[in-house]
Amino acid sequence: MPQFLSTTDADFDARFTAILNAKREDSPDVDDVVAGIIADVRKRGDAAVLELTAKFDRLDLTAAQLRVSEAEIDAEIARVPEAERIALETAAERIRAYHARQLPQDEMWTDEQGATLGWRWTPVSAAGLYVPGGLASYPSSVLMNALPAKVAGVGRLAVTVPTPDGIINPLVMMACRIAGVDEVYRIGGAQAIAALAYGTETIAPVDKITGPGNAFVAAAKRRVFGKVGIDMIAGPSEILVIADGDNDPDWIALDLMSQAEHDESAQSLLITTDAAFGQAVADAVEKRLETLERRAIAGTSWRDFGAIITVRDLDEAVTLCDRIAPEHLELCVADPEALSARITHAGAIFLGQWTPEAIGDYVGGPNHVLPTARSARFSSGLSVLDFVKRTTLARMSPEALRAIGPAAETLARSESLEAHGLSVTARLRKLNG
Amino acid sequence: MPQFLSTTDADFDARFTAILNAKREDSPDVDDVVAGIIADVRKRGDAAVLELTAKFDRLDLTAAQLRVSEAEIDAEIARVPEAERIALETAAERIRAYHARQLPQDEMWTDEQGATLGWRWTPVSAAGLYVPGGLASYPSSVLMNALPAKVAGVGRLAVTVPTPDGIINPLVMMACRIAGVDEVYRIGGAQAIAALAYGTETIAPVDKITGPGNAFVAAAKRRVFGKVGIDMIAGPSEILVIADGDNDPDWIALDLMSQAEHDESAQSLLITTDAAFGQAVADAVEKRLETLERRAIAGTSWRDFGAIITVRDLDEAVTLCDRIAPEHLELCVADPEALSARITHAGAIFLGQWTPEAIGDYVGGPNHVLPTARSARFSSGLSVLDFVKRTTLARMSPEALRAIGPAAETLARSESLEAHGLSVTARLRKLNG
Repeated sequence: MPQFLSTTDADFDARFTAILNAKREDSPDVDDVVAGIIADVRKRGDAAVLELTAKFDRLDLTAAQLRVSEAEIDAEIARVPEAERIALETAAERIRAYHARQLPQDEMWTDEQGATLGWRWTPVSAAGLYVPGGLASYPSSVLMNALPAKVAGVGRLAVTVPTPDGIINPLVMMACRIAGVDEVYRIGGAQAIAALAYGTETIAPVDKITGPGNAFVAAAKRRVFGKVGIDMIAGPSEILVIADGDNDPDWIALDLMSQAEHDESAQSLLITTDAAFGQAVADAVEKRLETLERRAIAGTSWRDFGAIITVRDLDEAVTLCDRIAPEHLELCVADPEALSARITHAGAIFLGQWTPEAIGDYVGGPNHVLPTARSARFSSGLSVLDFVKRTTLARMSPEALRAIGPAAETLARSESLEAHGLSVTARLRKLNG
Repeated sequence: MPQFLSTTDADFDARFTAILNAKREDSPDVDDVVAGIIADVRKRGDAAVLELTAKFDRLDLTAAQLRVSEAEIDAEIARVPEAERIALETAAERIRAYHARQLPQDEMWTDEQGATLGWRWTPVSAAGLYVPGGLASYPSSVLMNALPAKVAGVGRLAVTVPTPDGIINPLVMMACRIAGVDEVYRIGGAQAIAALAYGTETIAPVDKITGPGNAFVAAAKRRVFGKVGIDMIAGPSEILVIADGDNDPDWIALDLMSQAEHDESAQSLLITTDAAFGQAVADAVEKRLETLERRAIAGTSWRDFGAIITVRDLDEAVTLCDRIAPEHLELCVADPEALSARITHAGAIFLGQWTPEAIGDYVGGPNHVLPTARSARFSSGLSVLDFVKRTTLARMSPEALRAIGPAAETLARSESLEAHGLSVTARLRKLNG
């Protein structure tokens, strides 16, 4: 059973704060191990990657075998049933269409002083995408990471995916092909991140690395940050459903379980204006937990981190929601748009009872890589903007320099940066004869 | 004297690569000290901050004195000469106007399947701005960090600035006032970053921290990243000037020195199509170094990290520039726009001989917080986008769910996420009667 809270409880604030601060991640300190792996790959390149792959993935390769060949990819995707292929293509088409609208615009204008100003966006030249192996090797995540990069115009997109014991996931290969991935390497762990960041004889370095991974991958991404760009370090998944009493308890139960089944550390929360409905959802969850394939994981997450919170009204729900800053937010209320407009912090909002969060994981169009652990207060989901960068532009006409140059001279002097000021002074002297 | 290189040299590639890889920063390993300071501030709040301020800034304060009062700010800015005030106001007005154009747009549309999709931008609720003390306490940096936050709509903007021995910089106070900073605290170092990230009895926590600082500040920002958002970790300043022979060597010399004077680790590079012009610039630098106030710093930077590179043509200049990915790029050539369009990686471009980089530091309008150390390959200068975050929105109509729901069911099954699929199935069952 999850926790039950009500804003009318005397101890509500303390218990709610405890839920907010629950330490859900048990991050082992692997930083020293990871530092050693990165140093080894930087020093010995392919040789280090091959040794580590033999050790961790029980896979003996030559350097020439690090890359998965096009023929191998062809053979793998030939095994994908047609229904899966069509579903992936449907998802890709919708994700591509959504992200195409995110491409930012270049701007250039001349102001009244005669200064021409603006900016220009350019894609990152090369990006690397980490795909986990084993159970968490999700083809949908390949699409969600690779398509924004390709829409942005990234020229070279390399995927690394570990294949323990040599087992390749055909759907991951299919997703790579559909998304236009340029290179696939069968490596994982910190060694894959190091190879992408620093390059080896076989693997050219990239400029940006995205994608989820275990504690070793996360620690490696933190370490190479600065040498290359990285996306966020994702924590366990979260969902908050705000629902009134006019919903099917079983639907809401399934929405809560669709996050809980990801991970024992996932967090599923329900805020409702109707205490009886909250109880009905709790009952529906118990029923579903009898048969769900992943009932062990989902049950643990629900018991340890789940909560059902009864509020007096939707005003209270808005306040609590902004304190939670949820990764996923479902609004199952009479007027979800009106409620949505009042929410400040959330990674993604799903409006109305016909929009289960799972639609957003696969085929809605928006990205499913979203800020966790309350970071929606200051960050956003993955987007085309993660794969472009902006160069600012400025051109002064002689008149513009005459108009605003003196202010720069004054400020340079006040900051004791003489050469700054003189670089303006020398030009103004010429202009003023 | 700096290094002289030519692309016609037999050893050019090796020497150019050495320049690219020059280790310019001597980052002391202060991580353990910083970890201790952060833990102390989290545990003891104001008391820890006060002790550390007494120790490092030789300043005994009470908790009530941590914040600089409005009356103190008034008294400080009364000491600012009118010319400086007007120059700061001119700069602020231009920076505000440039950044106002960066505000991103909300979007919402309904596609042919009946899915309503979009996104919404909201400002970060509270931001903290670190301002260094001492020599590097630049009022221009206050404007460059604070104004994008205020343009973004950040409700609460807190500045921390150490005041060693109690000495306040009046121009920094003036810049805070002009930019609309809400709170100013006279603290610095890792303790200021910890106070902003975790809060104390006196200082409410923020969601995002930006601004430059020393090794302790940088290490603290890395440590609190995730709890709050941070901007980039800035390295020493850099400039690349690409110039043909048709320029005044003294102007270019001053532009190179305007970065060199920042820091002994700064890097100033000139690429020119005219070897004789390159020599003339080198001579002009030597002449300026005889008298510049900061000649010791600028001379060391120029000798250790400066270089003059002669190229056969501008094609070669473009190729080298993209390998350098400079923070600041000046194009002093006949057609700077045409050359600019061919450059992929640069933080900011200054077009033509009337646009010295120093204009961009103060009054041009674009931000002067820019990516260093080749990170322009994957990141951008500070902007309004650093103080907003995006919430994605999705609403399925029943028809939309009927159209795309089955693909989600298929993909959920293929990823063994049963509850994901069932949350769609339960709804489709109702829809399909």
